[in-house]
Amino acid sequence: MIFVSNSARWEQPRTSLFTDHYELTMLQGALHSGAAHRKAVFEAFARRLPDGRRYGIVGGTGRLLDGIMAFRFGEEELEFLARTGVVNKETLDYLADFRFTGDIWGYAEGEAYFPNSPILIVESTFAEACILETYILSVLNHDSAIASAASRMVMAAGQRPCIEMGSRRTQEESATAAARAAVIAGFDSTSNLEAGLRYGLKTVGTAAHSFTLLHDTERDAFEAQVASLGAGTSLLVDTYDVEAAVRTAVDIAGDKLGAVRLDSGDLVEQAQWVRQLLDDLGNEHTRITVTSDLDEYAIAALQSAPVDSYGVGTSLVTGSGAPTASMVYKLVSRTNDAGEFVSVAKAAKNKTSKGGRKYALRRLNDNGTATQELIGVGHRPADDGNDRTLLQQFIKNGELLPGWTGHEGVLRARQRHADSLAELPTVVHRLHRGEPAIPTIYEEN
Amino acid sequence: MIFVSNSARWEQPRTSLFTDHYELTMLQGALHSGAAHRKAVFEAFARRLPDGRRYGIVGGTGRLLDGIMAFRFGEEELEFLARTGVVNKETLDYLADFRFTGDIWGYAEGEAYFPNSPILIVESTFAEACILETYILSVLNHDSAIASAASRMVMAAGQRPCIEMGSRRTQEESATAAARAAVIAGFDSTSNLEAGLRYGLKTVGTAAHSFTLLHDTERDAFEAQVASLGAGTSLLVDTYDVEAAVRTAVDIAGDKLGAVRLDSGDLVEQAQWVRQLLDDLGNEHTRITVTSDLDEYAIAALQSAPVDSYGVGTSLVTGSGAPTASMVYKLVSRTNDAGEFVSVAKAAKNKTSKGGRKYALRRLNDNGTATQELIGVGHRPADDGNDRTLLQQFIKNGELLPGWTGHEGVLRARQRHADSLAELPTVVHRLHRGEPAIPTIYEEN
Repeated sequence: MIFVSNSARWEQPRTSLFTDHYELTMLQGALHSGAAHRKAVFEAFARRLPDGRRYGIVGGTGRLLDGIMAFRFGEEELEFLARTGVVNKETLDYLADFRFTGDIWGYAEGEAYFPNSPILIVESTFAEACILETYILSVLNHDSAIASAASRMVMAAGQRPCIEMGSRRTQEESATAAARAAVIAGFDSTSNLEAGLRYGLKTVGTAAHSFTLLHDTERDAFEAQVASLGAGTSLLVDTYDVEAAVRTAVDIAGDKLGAVRLDSGDLVEQAQWVRQLLDDLGNEHTRITVTSDLDEYAIAALQSAPVDSYGVGTSLVTGSGAPTASMVYKLVSRTNDAGEFVSVAKAAKNKTSKGGRKYALRRLNDNGTATQELIGVGHRPADDGNDRTLLQQFIKNGELLPGWTGHEGVLRARQRHADSLAELPTVVHRLHRGEPAIPTIYEEN
Repeated sequence: MIFVSNSARWEQPRTSLFTDHYELTMLQGALHSGAAHRKAVFEAFARRLPDGRRYGIVGGTGRLLDGIMAFRFGEEELEFLARTGVVNKETLDYLADFRFTGDIWGYAEGEAYFPNSPILIVESTFAEACILETYILSVLNHDSAIASAASRMVMAAGQRPCIEMGSRRTQEESATAAARAAVIAGFDSTSNLEAGLRYGLKTVGTAAHSFTLLHDTERDAFEAQVASLGAGTSLLVDTYDVEAAVRTAVDIAGDKLGAVRLDSGDLVEQAQWVRQLLDDLGNEHTRITVTSDLDEYAIAALQSAPVDSYGVGTSLVTGSGAPTASMVYKLVSRTNDAGEFVSVAKAAKNKTSKGGRKYALRRLNDNGTATQELIGVGHRPADDGNDRTLLQQFIKNGELLPGWTGHEGVLRARQRHADSLAELPTVVHRLHRGEPAIPTIYEEN
């Protein structure tokens, strides 16, 4: 896989108003009571995986950390909050000087997660940690949903590359984030140019049906494409008659034709006879790409067909049935007037969570295979020798630690994804529904 | 409903790289063949509605039009495209000067649509219309999916207001767009501050469980909130024991207490006894808001309970099972070398579409109820006297026509939504699955 270099000058915009109104009114109330400055620990986690999934993949951390550094209130935001009366003067004064000064820990981006894995831990004052809630969840919920779906697609595709091409089926900024998350989870490349610019991802693409329809004949279109993009291009062969198109394509591009793309019909059956036809014409090296509404199940069904790569769109960007990772962000511990930490948790019905700061290890057996997600409540569980520490520090005293963001962060997360998957039991290779691949075990104080 | 005024100075960023790589390589190929400058008509439409839905609602048009005006290639974009070799020098020169100079027509934002309704029609050169494809579909597919889901929720809620609070469950920019789409489809307000700033929407919010957990007692938390936000605030009463919380709330805020919020448990049963308790305590005017994972079906089930407003999150921002509207954008007509328009359409398997420029009327009976979506192919169907013309012009010779964007556009779209729904047959009030509310009828040349 070749990334282009990341010399992009994309500038992270301010993120402070990607926030629910109530985060700021809570801040106001807490400034009033004085509790705003109590030390607090918030944790982001998912109570469960999407129905039947064996694992989830953490996505978005790199984007999130850049966004937290840009979580500042400028003149425009303050003017809006003042004009609309969202908060009072005391609160506006606090926000004007706001920057996050605490610590943030979490699962590395690309890491596998399970129910109740403490994916992100924010240690700061209540005021600082509270107002980041909405933004943290937006990024993690979206990007993890995409990374989790992408990971299963890549697994189903085996050694064949997957190409992300779902931009048109989701909001434009989500599309850019989705392309990034897909590449972290093992996609080879994306069609999304903005993601190429921001994160240095490899972008690919050649032509759609409209290009063929624009020209008077399919031959005219193919000739123009080959003349302009070279024989190594991928020609879309299903605008009219597939067989005729393949013959025309080979006639024009010769045995250097890079690929043909199939975007409709019975892809298994078509791939078989198109492969035979290409071989008969002497084009053993011309690849076959398929792209029609694929998901992990369709990819698995195509593994027996002579297909060389998969283009995935709608299903990827909508999380293949699970468009959000359903993570929540909960206050689990805060200080009292004596400055001592007190574990806290909501008590009422069906949405309980566990109070106390969490620590997490992935317990591995002697073969290096994961057996448990071990979570210590209020303490670090003892490492039995093979265990892997899951929590990494991202931000220390408000300073971003190096290596987690930008192009470098994507590369590192992609490697983390590959390494984490290799460690999971083989049940994760099964697409059918079942229990999480390993159990989450709490070790209480 | 009160909107705040829209004096926001939010500036639309450039949108040109929210684009699939292949749009630009097609441009390059077409510049090479010369066909790039042929006149072309592209149309955006959905081949079908989400499974069982009776209608869809067009969302995103106002955002889209602003974005098309900002679809320009600056130094940063051109440098990226050059450095990564996406396109050649000739194409870069074309893009450097690019601005859209054609005409754009479409269904007004907020309008109901049906299978094959020509939701957006772009008339320009192939070059100009082609490279807008991905961005147009991203905006329309996302925002229409949200508006369509929101419309059903508002219908299920009857006269009770719905509040959008799903920001945390979707990507941060999608959240802002979703808030806007929800308000267009009749939601009363949103928790999303960025949407408040950009579009002048009413934002609301008070406190979450963490605010209660932060304080030593629930009473401390409620006192702080009431002292800071006033007795008219909404107190969240399910952190510990609901009955005790309601009694504490009334004790602190008195009969001026604005609302209590229930976020867990059996909402129907709880709303009933909480209403009774509030009444018994003399708080007949204190409202009850419910917020726990609601969708249109849960809202319908709560209509018999004494609930005053619904807060909707996850289900809204994920389109209630249909996170994308599945619209496509197809070349339907283009000129030949003689300058004459020729209808074009893909012929191969299972993804056919109908060539030729479309015109659309909503046929109404004498009672003003819609009976047909009448689509003329290549001509305007004759109006039988009651019909309503659906296509509006948004952009003329590259100039944005007034009234469609910004705060004004949101207000206008919200009115369009209300008026269009009032015109549809009563079957649209049913939540269960069925056929589209009216059939789409083609009138051929």
